[in-house]
Amino acid sequence: MNSLRDIGEDALIQRLIRLVPRDPSPLAGPGDDCAVIDPGPGSAMLQLLKTDAMVAGIHFLPDSPARAVGWKAAARVVSDFAAMGGRPERFLITLALDPQSPLCWAEELYRGIGDCLSAFDAVLAGGETSSVPAGSAAVISIAATGCVPRDQLVLRSTGKPGHALFVTGTLGGSLRGKHLSFSPRSKEANWLVSNYKPTAMMDVSDGLAKDLPRLAAASGCGFELDRERLPVTPGCTLAQALGDGEDFELLFACEEARSAAMLAAWPAAFPDLPLSRIGQLVASGSGETLAGGWDHFGPQVS
Amino acid sequence: MNSLRDIGEDALIQRLIRLVPRDPSPLAGPGDDCAVIDPGPGSAMLQLLKTDAMVAGIHFLPDSPARAVGWKAAARVVSDFAAMGGRPERFLITLALDPQSPLCWAEELYRGIGDCLSAFDAVLAGGETSSVPAGSAAVISIAATGCVPRDQLVLRSTGKPGHALFVTGTLGGSLRGKHLSFSPRSKEANWLVSNYKPTAMMDVSDGLAKDLPRLAAASGCGFELDRERLPVTPGCTLAQALGDGEDFELLFACEEARSAAMLAAWPAAFPDLPLSRIGQLVASGSGETLAGGWDHFGPQVS
Repeated sequence: MNSLRDIGEDALIQRLIRLVPRDPSPLAGPGDDCAVIDPGPGSAMLQLLKTDAMVAGIHFLPDSPARAVGWKAAARVVSDFAAMGGRPERFLITLALDPQSPLCWAEELYRGIGDCLSAFDAVLAGGETSSVPAGSAAVISIAATGCVPRDQLVLRSTGKPGHALFVTGTLGGSLRGKHLSFSPRSKEANWLVSNYKPTAMMDVSDGLAKDLPRLAAASGCGFELDRERLPVTPGCTLAQALGDGEDFELLFACEEARSAAMLAAWPAAFPDLPLSRIGQLVASGSGETLAGGWDHFGPQVS
Repeated sequence: MNSLRDIGEDALIQRLIRLVPRDPSPLAGPGDDCAVIDPGPGSAMLQLLKTDAMVAGIHFLPDSPARAVGWKAAARVVSDFAAMGGRPERFLITLALDPQSPLCWAEELYRGIGDCLSAFDAVLAGGETSSVPAGSAAVISIAATGCVPRDQLVLRSTGKPGHALFVTGTLGGSLRGKHLSFSPRSKEANWLVSNYKPTAMMDVSDGLAKDLPRLAAASGCGFELDRERLPVTPGCTLAQALGDGEDFELLFACEEARSAAMLAAWPAAFPDLPLSRIGQLVASGSGETLAGGWDHFGPQVS
């Protein structure tokens, strides 16, 4: 009998979503950072929907500061909205906790969520609490609605061969602390879609080695990665930059013709954040492959 | 140091939601079955948002048929939309599972979710999968959007003293199987809001002993319960009818003047489902109290 580990996360999702009725809207759907809902041609804004979960022992350690865990849980979702050019609006927060958990832990967690909602102008709309059996891991599941102006929406699937690939910030080393305190690239994404609209974009959550192939495949492309230009976090190896995951930086494709102007304008807008050209999209079937990155259900590599 | 068990679920939620920015919309908010979003005065439809979680060992047993578990996970959400007079639209499904779980279990679960989405005309918009540490309970967290015509929205908080209280179906005995195969009262709720609009409504998920006081309190009322008229499931005791929970029937208040006509019209519309008048709302501070029902974090009573 096959287990989830035998097939891996991406294949699992592909098998599962075939078993339920799907949203017929051409903009929406599993496979991108968020689902996109079109309220109708009269609406200048599209609605974004996102759900994301964090599990104790997987995404945070039981002794991680609860306020930072709460920040991370909400900031991951903000990062997904940013990856589509959008912003968050309303959050639904589900906690599944051992009844023996300290009340102060749950309160600190909520304070951290509140820090993030305040920072990105979002609000709590509802929630749910459930117990888990004694000894089971705590689960924090967050669903949220967001919005994006119709003309600023960026999907993963609309890159073309020849488009240059960029990544914000530096990659690798998230476990040294950044994974609990990162700043979602909401301002940066907004600047990009307003000025130099990417042709495809996503956030790097499972490591470039996992996410770059996803973006390329969604766009029906291959990719070439210029390893010399990869912005490796100081003190990290190239392998860590590719595989650690939880960078929460923006990975995007941009037409060659606007790339130089964008790179020239970036430092004035974001003096403290590097922007690196790391390669390009190429025709499907050519380019290279990457192994590694985080897979919840695949065989884990170190 | 206080634990979650020390304060109980309702008090926990009240403490937590104070720690985050809240939706300023007067229609929305934690405390009702769903959050209600008003897109603006030009819109005839309101949006509903809901999140709900099921945990192995709490809401279902590890050896429960996975397809029935999937049905239940989705049907609980449909029931919440019905409780506000609305219907579901788009689902976001989060699974947190042990990587050793059989693939066929996850697929059967999704088939059950698909059964319910098909039955109630809803679609999958997105999802998330995560691993949990070995031995941890599986968690299924479902968030969904729905809608309700503006003039058919029913809240918990708008009952008045003197309004009669009704419940659909029979109460108690959910663990004998109904909790995995119940039919959300969507058609019934639609009939009610179209013909005899309740003044307050919710679904009975934690037992009448827990939920009736919630409805009354949300409406700023007390209540009187006519135990003689309580529709007890055959083979169950009154205590089970009050406390078992997971009935997923509609509990609602109706103005006295329309109650007789509604009771007279009901059997032709729903010949197989009882509708019972079980008491009335009274002024706050008068009436009675009820103990029992399901509390995830309170001391558990049998």
